[in-house]
Amino acid sequence: MNRVYNFSAGPSMLPVPVLERAASELMCYGDSGMSVMEMSHRSPVYEKIIADAEAKLRELMNIPDNYKVLFLQGGASTQFAAVPLNLIGRTGKADYIVSGQFSGKAYKEAQKMGYNVKCIATSKDTNFDRIPVVTKDMISPDASYVHICFNNTIYGTKYGYIPDTGDIPLVADMSSCIISEPVDVTKFGVIYAGAQKNMAPAGVTLVIVREDLLEYGDPKMPSMLDWKLMAENGSMYNTPPCYSIYVAGLVYEWILSLGGLDTMKAMNEKKAAVLYDYLDSQDYYIAPVQKDSRSMMNVTFVTGVEEIDKKFPKEATAAGLVNLKGHRSVGGMRASIYNAMPLEGVEALVEFMKKFAAENPKA
Amino acid sequence: MNRVYNFSAGPSMLPVPVLERAASELMCYGDSGMSVMEMSHRSPVYEKIIADAEAKLRELMNIPDNYKVLFLQGGASTQFAAVPLNLIGRTGKADYIVSGQFSGKAYKEAQKMGYNVKCIATSKDTNFDRIPVVTKDMISPDASYVHICFNNTIYGTKYGYIPDTGDIPLVADMSSCIISEPVDVTKFGVIYAGAQKNMAPAGVTLVIVREDLLEYGDPKMPSMLDWKLMAENGSMYNTPPCYSIYVAGLVYEWILSLGGLDTMKAMNEKKAAVLYDYLDSQDYYIAPVQKDSRSMMNVTFVTGVEEIDKKFPKEATAAGLVNLKGHRSVGGMRASIYNAMPLEGVEALVEFMKKFAAENPKA
Repeated sequence: MNRVYNFSAGPSMLPVPVLERAASELMCYGDSGMSVMEMSHRSPVYEKIIADAEAKLRELMNIPDNYKVLFLQGGASTQFAAVPLNLIGRTGKADYIVSGQFSGKAYKEAQKMGYNVKCIATSKDTNFDRIPVVTKDMISPDASYVHICFNNTIYGTKYGYIPDTGDIPLVADMSSCIISEPVDVTKFGVIYAGAQKNMAPAGVTLVIVREDLLEYGDPKMPSMLDWKLMAENGSMYNTPPCYSIYVAGLVYEWILSLGGLDTMKAMNEKKAAVLYDYLDSQDYYIAPVQKDSRSMMNVTFVTGVEEIDKKFPKEATAAGLVNLKGHRSVGGMRASIYNAMPLEGVEALVEFMKKFAAENPKA
Repeated sequence: MNRVYNFSAGPSMLPVPVLERAASELMCYGDSGMSVMEMSHRSPVYEKIIADAEAKLRELMNIPDNYKVLFLQGGASTQFAAVPLNLIGRTGKADYIVSGQFSGKAYKEAQKMGYNVKCIATSKDTNFDRIPVVTKDMISPDASYVHICFNNTIYGTKYGYIPDTGDIPLVADMSSCIISEPVDVTKFGVIYAGAQKNMAPAGVTLVIVREDLLEYGDPKMPSMLDWKLMAENGSMYNTPPCYSIYVAGLVYEWILSLGGLDTMKAMNEKKAAVLYDYLDSQDYYIAPVQKDSRSMMNVTFVTGVEEIDKKFPKEATAAGLVNLKGHRSVGGMRASIYNAMPLEGVEALVEFMKKFAAENPKA
């Protein structure tokens, strides 16, 4: 077994201790006589697994009792539709901040579905190299909610602040930064996240929603998109993605065993600093993101020479550093360094970057 | 490791060789240097996994080229909404046959969403102990489709025939009988199935849809429920449930290695016969389902004495035969004997039933 450092933007690395535990329990979980994959979701043994996963997440994120935690399916893309279906009934309008591709998709989905939504800020003009500045006076006073994407996977940007939306609920897609550092849940009406970056194998989507926001759903919406119905059924209106939830629970346990989100933040800051400090110390590679908008999870850089940019991920792969090619809308390279990426992986990347720069001078 | 015989209605048993293979590959798949759970869904190694899974399923089920195969999320319950959203635009109306709880849920979901749907046949009057007889003259000539649930998990019934709907597309939920025996796909417009009974861990939903039916979708529907969009993106409009699809591929490979669906049918018939022959040979246990409607996958029986019915699953569990309690709407017992249940498990159940009957005489 020869594991690589996997810089994929998602699905992405899982902690080795979590994979080892999952492998050891795969044929038979405890004294249940079966794999978690084979368990009835209504059995006491599985009910304990999902309840423990929720309890650990609540502990990790310090989620108040007046927030429901849902484990759903369909990824953040399903929530792009679920958000207006569940929330826009309050006033009939909503505001969106477009800071990259996924927040743009969320906005377009609401438009496509015929909703009255408004883009109140965007950084499109500068190819999303920064988080737009949003002040309270920009927000529509009659918006049902304000939607943001807290970390932009493709561009490598993250909000350095939580927009103040006053009494209007803030809804945040946190797919690519969830549980990477502490966040004040009470500042948000809804937090949602696909699991496949920082939490679990693809196939489970986390929704954390303040209870009083469960009253505005469209009665004609597809039942499976109805947060209230899912909350009333403890995420088990139908069969949930049992195995992904189990692995999520193992990931939460792993983080708790290390000391929780404060530790995770310190580890992630250290990893990101290794990479950004190197980027800032030289001029072979260029980091296109404005410094105050830099993501701790996704680090983008280019050489400025297309041919060299193409060569980099190939040679990195040969060196055991994989999935470093940037998204086609940005070009260049992207290193996704989520919770499960060890410091050694980032250090190995920087060493490789130095060697590559020396060996591939620009003309 | 002491595995039990698990008669759960779903999630349910997976073949031991599949679990062993998954366990052996969990930390590192081939020479990829990573777990399948960690792979970018856009990477060549994962693209091959999903393409192979589809190719094996097409081979197994003999799926014609003019049918698309989709691997989606959200379970059959999500498809209860997706079916009218994608199909009812053809005429504005649809027919439903209600043969149990899930077909009833599909019907109610379409009603809740405001669609003009009609229940043209039901066996509700006899507590769903049989499949309703449906003849061509009962079908609305202007229906966009006719919806059925081909095997009713809770009641233990299955269609002994494929309703002749003429030119009107037949849409079938096959969650609890998919790939248990050969089926003529060309008789159906759409076949869909949650994976967690016969195919894979919960979290992936199979949709097989005839291409010409992809033209009637509601343009305002949630994108993730849009079959055409999913087909255009090869089930990768967003991140699919990668790991569940991988396990599904292993299950398809296991069935092919045994000889395909003809072999599977012979094995399932033999298992079901062991149980039904015993039930028909004595009068301690009663099989409530009409003989021509019996399911090969879910076998229901009662003793007729509530206290004895309660005792049975408890004592069976102690004997390593688990999850035999029937659904609350039927009572008694239910043995789900999907593809992965070995003949030895069914034989052990019958031996236990004999012993239990001898030890627990009715008053």
